[in-house]
Amino acid sequence: MLSFESDYMEGAHEKILQRLIETNMEKLSGYGVDVYCESAKSKIKEACQCQEANVEFLVGGTQTNAIVIDTLLAPYEGVVAAETGHVSVHEAGAIEATKHKVLTLPEQNGKISAQDLKGFLAGFWQDGNHEHMVFPGMVYISHPTEFGTLYTAQELKELSAICKEYSIPLFLDGARLGYGLAAKGIDVTLPIIAEYCDVFYIGGTKVGAFCGEAIVFTKHNTPKHFTTLVKQHGALLAKGRLLGIQFDTLFTDNLYFTISAHAIEMAELLKTILKEKNYRFYLESNTNQQFIILENKKLEQLREKIGFSFWDKYDEEHTVVRLATSWATKQEDVEKLENIL
Amino acid sequence: MLSFESDYMEGAHEKILQRLIETNMEKLSGYGVDVYCESAKSKIKEACQCQEANVEFLVGGTQTNAIVIDTLLAPYEGVVAAETGHVSVHEAGAIEATKHKVLTLPEQNGKISAQDLKGFLAGFWQDGNHEHMVFPGMVYISHPTEFGTLYTAQELKELSAICKEYSIPLFLDGARLGYGLAAKGIDVTLPIIAEYCDVFYIGGTKVGAFCGEAIVFTKHNTPKHFTTLVKQHGALLAKGRLLGIQFDTLFTDNLYFTISAHAIEMAELLKTILKEKNYRFYLESNTNQQFIILENKKLEQLREKIGFSFWDKYDEEHTVVRLATSWATKQEDVEKLENIL
Amino acid sequence: MLSFESDYMEGAHEKILQRLIETNMEKLSGYGVDVYCESAKSKIKEACQCQEANVEFLVGGTQTNAIVIDTLLAPYEGVVAAETGHVSVHEAGAIEATKHKVLTLPEQNGKISAQDLKGFLAGFWQDGNHEHMVFPGMVYISHPTEFGTLYTAQELKELSAICKEYSIPLFLDGARLGYGLAAKGIDVTLPIIAEYCDVFYIGGTKVGAFCGEAIVFTKHNTPKHFTTLVKQHGALLAKGRLLGIQFDTLFTDNLYFTISAHAIEMAELLKTILKEKNYRFYLESNTNQQFIILENKKLEQLREKIGFSFWDKYDEEHTVVRLATSWATKQEDVEKLENIL
Amino acid sequence: MLSFESDYMEGAHEKILQRLIETNMEKLSGYGVDVYCESAKSKIKEACQCQEANVEFLVGGTQTNAIVIDTLLAPYEGVVAAETGHVSVHEAGAIEATKHKVLTLPEQNGKISAQDLKGFLAGFWQDGNHEHMVFPGMVYISHPTEFGTLYTAQELKELSAICKEYSIPLFLDGARLGYGLAAKGIDVTLPIIAEYCDVFYIGGTKVGAFCGEAIVFTKHNTPKHFTTLVKQHGALLAKGRLLGIQFDTLFTDNLYFTISAHAIEMAELLKTILKEKNYRFYLESNTNQQFIILENKKLEQLREKIGFSFWDKYDEEHTVVRLATSWATKQEDVEKLENIL
Repeated sequence: MLSFESDYMEGAHEKILQRLIETNMEKLSGYGVDVYCESAKSKIKEACQCQEANVEFLVGGTQTNAIVIDTLLAPYEGVVAAETGHVSVHEAGAIEATKHKVLTLPEQNGKISAQDLKGFLAGFWQDGNHEHMVFPGMVYISHPTEFGTLYTAQELKELSAICKEYSIPLFLDGARLGYGLAAKGIDVTLPIIAEYCDVFYIGGTKVGAFCGEAIVFTKHNTPKHFTTLVKQHGALLAKGRLLGIQFDTLFTDNLYFTISAHAIEMAELLKTILKEKNYRFYLESNTNQQFIILENKKLEQLREKIGFSFWDKYDEEHTVVRLATSWATKQEDVEKLENIL
Repeated sequence: MLSFESDYMEGAHEKILQRLIETNMEKLSGYGVDVYCESAKSKIKEACQCQEANVEFLVGGTQTNAIVIDTLLAPYEGVVAAETGHVSVHEAGAIEATKHKVLTLPEQNGKISAQDLKGFLAGFWQDGNHEHMVFPGMVYISHPTEFGTLYTAQELKELSAICKEYSIPLFLDGARLGYGLAAKGIDVTLPIIAEYCDVFYIGGTKVGAFCGEAIVFTKHNTPKHFTTLVKQHGALLAKGRLLGIQFDTLFTDNLYFTISAHAIEMAELLKTILKEKNYRFYLESNTNQQFIILENKKLEQLREKIGFSFWDKYDEEHTVVRLATSWATKQEDVEKLENIL
Repeated sequence: MLSFESDYMEGAHEKILQRLIETNMEKLSGYGVDVYCESAKSKIKEACQCQEANVEFLVGGTQTNAIVIDTLLAPYEGVVAAETGHVSVHEAGAIEATKHKVLTLPEQNGKISAQDLKGFLAGFWQDGNHEHMVFPGMVYISHPTEFGTLYTAQELKELSAICKEYSIPLFLDGARLGYGLAAKGIDVTLPIIAEYCDVFYIGGTKVGAFCGEAIVFTKHNTPKHFTTLVKQHGALLAKGRLLGIQFDTLFTDNLYFTISAHAIEMAELLKTILKEKNYRFYLESNTNQQFIILENKKLEQLREKIGFSFWDKYDEEHTVVRLATSWATKQEDVEKLENIL
Repeated sequence: MLSFESDYMEGAHEKILQRLIETNMEKLSGYGVDVYCESAKSKIKEACQCQEANVEFLVGGTQTNAIVIDTLLAPYEGVVAAETGHVSVHEAGAIEATKHKVLTLPEQNGKISAQDLKGFLAGFWQDGNHEHMVFPGMVYISHPTEFGTLYTAQELKELSAICKEYSIPLFLDGARLGYGLAAKGIDVTLPIIAEYCDVFYIGGTKVGAFCGEAIVFTKHNTPKHFTTLVKQHGALLAKGRLLGIQFDTLFTDNLYFTISAHAIEMAELLKTILKEKNYRFYLESNTNQQFIILENKKLEQLREKIGFSFWDKYDEEHTVVRLATSWATKQEDVEKLENIL
């Protein structure tokens, strides 16, 4: 049985394991105040070419989305997101549980357009009734999106300009950021993200770590008493070292980028095979998630030998499925897949 | 200056004022435990032909929507509503402030269809990922809707059947219920609403009272310790008599229905005038709110003499405006309007 | 049956009723934007000798406490209050429902001392662990307290100085403020309260109105987008006129003060009678609430003829009960009471 | 510099590291649905001699306290705890952030007494005003407490009986449970806890794991759709294996108990040394946390060579400090400590 269901099916990169072993018996302070957290923060700021940034580590993605949104919004504000955005659909209401509404925009392949955003914000402020509505207080995008698609640098620039015009922050969910940065023909780099986004996070869970997301506040905009707020959300890890050591390793010798590039190489190989075999793509993705449309009969045959994720019903006779590669995908497994497809 | 902006521009019906005066110095217990609240509850149950109902009084509409939704939903549930529903758009996030998501369906003239509802609920339960999503836990409809439109008895029956199938309550927001019940050619009565809805409220604020909404729980489904929950929401009125006396008056000698019928008569007169003058209607409404499309130039002229509400931009050169009648509208004012239009 | 249970057993002062009648058919905008609200605000600012104040009207006391506390606190902050404070004990968790903790101090006759407050605040900031604790973000006092007692001007000054030192607002709950201002031998006036408190409210519900509390923000510290926040709490009254007209009447020709003085006169008469009859006082109160300790046997006799509130068990054989006068108390009823006691 | 500040200063027990390495490249489903989680749950139920239990894994202690309390309480309920309880003081308001009040009882060495609990619950239900108060909906105890003290089986039995009488669950916070179970002369075992408590958790973070707490619901009382609720709290770990593998290791070959016993042995050695050196104990603790009272001058001397935690000011000239041992404490370090003290 081959397994392409998701990008979080293995443990952690072996170098992370090795560092955990080496540092295991060192006595370190808790709650993120230790040398490894400090070192990791420093390396991430360096990689972002953003010395004024502040980096904070949390355990998981839903947690990070909820905390960033809750702590940066005023109580009368909501977050603007694509109607397919993770915070709109797949967080079990974690955003609303912080009392904030998700205000949705139409999406194109998982992305929002500058035009739609501008129209929405302008419309809100023109509405005579807006005191009775939720104020748009932040823009959330995911990069890669839930469909594996990516913004261009120009698109980020435009979204950023609109956010500046309306004085609201642009927040980029980078749960799979590594795969976005390693994608072919993409002009978005970490420093570009740090320039255009007010806050973003670098996903560890899906890119080589056991767990962990690194939030980067780029504009001297860390919420006051952030540690207390994190604790209040039940998200302050006692042994903060676990996050610090993992990110320190990922940002040593370009490991984060190297392993991401491997996942993309595997995804490109997968795409080539799928195209050769005349599979129909649901959309064009340059990252580690590939979406194809299968006849239901074919799907039943394949699922006995290959693990993948059901994504959506396409029509009565077809289904959209997702195959994902990751830092841990072995080339031999992709080659075995070729024989089965 | 004629005033047709809304249906809450005057105080209270004179009979309510009279009862407030008559009862003013009686010494009554607070918090809704008094003879007038009891009497009003009894008369409302009678009017609903639903003796097993439980009636509770609150002060305002947003408050009522937030409390009904919050107290009937489980924490993992959200409320399903039309994307134009009041709870979706114009409550300043009061629903999300109770930590519940509003799950939106497409609307037709402010209404949701049984088909869309069924599709949405079926889709949710088929989704393999639904543990990571907000569970649909209640269906919210407004009757009349925000556009003055009404459900038919058959439509309510169908929505109710779907809700029963999925074991979730159907909640009807009747902030303007009187005007819906008095509309011409409509087959929906209070007993029909009590039969098909698990909970609904009878609006007082917009139909003759200073303030007040009467919630009717029809299926032995009042949330446990409801008074404490109302207090916790900051909504327990110390002098509950103010609500009891008003509703007792409204449900004495059919006052609620009589004054609602007057508003509809005025609205029908208004419609006739608008049609004769060839105004373009945005949609067909049988209730006290009428929506017309005005050229922007015309709008500027009219607004000097008539008060109305801007509703929405129609296109670059046209705007949708709302004119509302109410229990307090004078026929002479509608006739004056005829001369201006 | 004589009735001294509470100070909210009648409707509204007759002058309020009269004004409601006179203004009833005037067409006014909703949501507090009307001439009566404006006029009332202006008169209240005048009475407070605080032109830079901002006045806002809400419906009830729990609601007001929850909204003031929630909108002035940061998410990592809680409110400091006496352990017997209304927000600590009798709001059904309305404060915690806004996600804020009530941090309690010991009380003396319902009051907190400057010394205890200073000790608490100093202790918090010295605690190395305070990042894991709720920050004290506001001080709540009630005046009169839940026991009818009052702060002196000197005490308010000291509490205010400590709050300034720690840069947190002092909030005075004046649900019964009229009775505090009218009490004999008291040096606290509205202008003094406006000087020392950052925010306070003038209770209407218990002092002559059907409902209504007037919040006074004295230091240019109204929370941003306050109307939207009030709406989000379900507390924005559509017919804001109901509050405006009542407060405008109460602050015309000193009505608020005159009717409060009457309640105090009745309370003084009651005290004299109780003393003459050798009843034992639980504590010394100069306001409209009097607390006495009754033998349980005596209590059973009296309750057949007099309505009062059980307050607390004193010991196995005694109970503390409360008798309250109000703006509506008739002298003849106090005299009848004399015969029964 | 010797380090006795806390019990979470090292990484994880080496056997855990070893298992993480062995299982690292296995492809496992996310979100806690994997063989290691299943195996760990089974072993924990076995250790509790409670086959009907349901075990769930979360990442940290504050998170666990907030989720258990929030998901088991009704909205009108709060949690009863000692005024020194962790949920009362040191969770940064994480409990209130779920909208629930912490109702405090007096403590004796960190413990609550059956008598105080009974008095509190009886008092609440006798209070005529209780509809305006927060209902006591759960009892929280920590074992060991924040002061290292322990309940006896008889005390647990009595608390449990009172909870049963009032139909509310008894919740035991076992963040340091291992050290409580290994303490000398203690009659409380895991099966006894499973019998008397409705829910409790077995702490991993402080007893050998990188992170992780195992909640045990003992009475078929897991909240409905618990996984969704955990996700909503931002607490659902994508790679649930990290928790499963750690607990599976801890409950293999009695590892959890063996390493806990080591910590106790070290603590007993520490106690003996402290006693011999005539240090003054703040209270008697049988677990891994020892509290002593130091003269401030002495404290300044010691802190240059020994790491410990400041606990509280004792008086002007003395301070309470805490020294903690753990599964990772080396006997040679305790012996070095002896020379310094």
